[in-house]
Amino acid sequence: MASCQPPRTTELVTMDVESVLHMKEGLGETSYAQNSSLQKKSMEAIKHIIVDSATDVYASRTPGCFTIADLGCSSGTNAFSLVSKIVESIHEKARQSERPTPEILVFLNDLPTNDFNSVFLNFPEFTRKLKGGIELQEGSAPSVYLAALPGSFYGRLSPSNSLDFIYSCHSLHWLSEVPLGLVDGNGKPINKGKIYISNTSHPAVPLAYLRQFQKDFSLFLKSRSAELRSGGRIVVLILGRRTDDHSDKSATVLWELLDQSLAIMVSQEMVDEEKVDTYNVPFYAPSTKEIEDEVGREGSFEIDFIQAYELNTSTGDPHKDARITSMAIRAIQESMITHHFGEGIVDKLFQIYSGLLSEFLVKQELKCPLLIAVLRKPHQT
Amino acid sequence: MASCQPPRTTELVTMDVESVLHMKEGLGETSYAQNSSLQKKSMEAIKHIIVDSATDVYASRTPGCFTIADLGCSSGTNAFSLVSKIVESIHEKARQSERPTPEILVFLNDLPTNDFNSVFLNFPEFTRKLKGGIELQEGSAPSVYLAALPGSFYGRLSPSNSLDFIYSCHSLHWLSEVPLGLVDGNGKPINKGKIYISNTSHPAVPLAYLRQFQKDFSLFLKSRSAELRSGGRIVVLILGRRTDDHSDKSATVLWELLDQSLAIMVSQEMVDEEKVDTYNVPFYAPSTKEIEDEVGREGSFEIDFIQAYELNTSTGDPHKDARITSMAIRAIQESMITHHFGEGIVDKLFQIYSGLLSEFLVKQELKCPLLIAVLRKPHQT
Repeated sequence: MASCQPPRTTELVTMDVESVLHMKEGLGETSYAQNSSLQKKSMEAIKHIIVDSATDVYASRTPGCFTIADLGCSSGTNAFSLVSKIVESIHEKARQSERPTPEILVFLNDLPTNDFNSVFLNFPEFTRKLKGGIELQEGSAPSVYLAALPGSFYGRLSPSNSLDFIYSCHSLHWLSEVPLGLVDGNGKPINKGKIYISNTSHPAVPLAYLRQFQKDFSLFLKSRSAELRSGGRIVVLILGRRTDDHSDKSATVLWELLDQSLAIMVSQEMVDEEKVDTYNVPFYAPSTKEIEDEVGREGSFEIDFIQAYELNTSTGDPHKDARITSMAIRAIQESMITHHFGEGIVDKLFQIYSGLLSEFLVKQELKCPLLIAVLRKPHQT
Repeated sequence: MASCQPPRTTELVTMDVESVLHMKEGLGETSYAQNSSLQKKSMEAIKHIIVDSATDVYASRTPGCFTIADLGCSSGTNAFSLVSKIVESIHEKARQSERPTPEILVFLNDLPTNDFNSVFLNFPEFTRKLKGGIELQEGSAPSVYLAALPGSFYGRLSPSNSLDFIYSCHSLHWLSEVPLGLVDGNGKPINKGKIYISNTSHPAVPLAYLRQFQKDFSLFLKSRSAELRSGGRIVVLILGRRTDDHSDKSATVLWELLDQSLAIMVSQEMVDEEKVDTYNVPFYAPSTKEIEDEVGREGSFEIDFIQAYELNTSTGDPHKDARITSMAIRAIQESMITHHFGEGIVDKLFQIYSGLLSEFLVKQELKCPLLIAVLRKPHQT
């Protein structure tokens, strides 16, 4: 590719994820808002766990104002659907126990590069619908205040003891940075031709990813522990692995197919091989054991509940599934790919990717392993 | 103008200000961010009042977390400069009294249509600078958390008793809607050829504007009273009038010149006369007495301080001043003008406007009357 800059091997360790990573903004055909139906489906499956956890925290202490944070809200409307359910459930709990409904303050968090403008445009409509729905059935609706909290959740976001309940869906598999340790002693990339852990990766690759996950998840827990009031809870929904094997196909297949798509573009001289060698996604799919270990090591939380499950997103039409999945991966990867490879390759790359996905899905189903964990900050004694 | 829709006289009372009004987004040549130097100059002149008020509130009670709201932050960097000064002053006060600096939570508010994305892009840099500056001089910097609170300040924005200090610069002269009462009994516009109160306006026009201001300002006070902790304060900086005369030239001249610019475009058949007749700005410049009256009537606040002053923005070059002022008015009016008249007229309109402003400024200086008020929510006894 004539227009390519010479490869810089340091690039893979210096990419500023916080300022580059964001879901595709806006409401267009390739936007995250239009391509987050898979995330919605998995959130639907575990919505009751989030809603029940929030309601339990409220019932255990009935504060005047109940404060919630959605960490990694992105720019679609998935976040609003969950907030509505939580508000309705708390309102109902208060009504049953003949207590006044608390005021509810909701912080929607994501990185500062997230398209918050498109989130905000839905605020007035959301508030009207929420209030209208509850008022019609059961008298006065609760006062819900919506705020945005831009910043990385790998660090503090809000004041001490300011939150009652936190949830994070489809976000914590994103690391704060591309793991250190993906270069050898001479600064040369060791995960050549691959962009995530694969079964041909050097053993140092899964180790580097695990170390980064441990560092990030520990910082996440420490930060949330400071922000949560005692008795508060966190619910985390995350892409994960079912086994101890880091190259477990179910967790890596979507990245492997992206490797293959990039390899095809290298063979067609549309992408530099060195560019692929220095690209690694800041993503990690942990096992439940790895989460349990880190919660234990960090020490602030007790695990109420942790479970792996499989989300089958199949519609029965593998070609349609390939299109939907390809568009979803594009919406979450486009910002990083264009940052690393330039603007020009995205359409072609995801055309190839969609084709490879189709071939794969004709032969076998795609089962995404998801982990859900409910963590509790114990009451101080 | 062939492409014009037939005039709809009801348009002037049905424009949804909340979803239309916003400062020109982005960072381009005509953006608010690039054309808010006049607002910055006036904020500089009264910055010490805001900073001292905030610090006084902090000193009177030294909370663990001090919560501030900037109502009408818009999309430039003016807001950040004030937040920095407040944080530094509170930090210094804590240091002097040998108390730990509180955590500080800052809510930046504006309408949901404001360009918050461009505000958020400055968050990381602001935090780095703030912490760096304080750490270099005086040890550990305070923890500052920044959140956005999209919504109209003519209504509740945050939970009860959740704020310590509120300020609003260059925003409260915007009404929640175009005043009712600008049409006669037959639905015909009564402020023909004018877009604000002028000395040729029907007497019902200033009355309609005053009524709308009273309704809005009262709702503003009531909402803030619920949100402020007792002993908290509000500082308001607003364009106003020095005299009781509603058509006081100093408060109306910039709108009169826009009337004249539109009249020129009507004469050149570039704008429909009826369109001008049905356009009125949702703006009101009150006198100090009108503010005092409304604070008294609403009853939640005591006035600590209220003062009118004149901001002389002259650079000594009337043509340069005309360009700066014209661009500033364009940045704050473009969203409403394009909504009402269509996209096409803005460049030409402000070219004419800039010319008329030049002629005016060659003959006399522009003196903007500004009002500043500091209101206190009394301690509950």
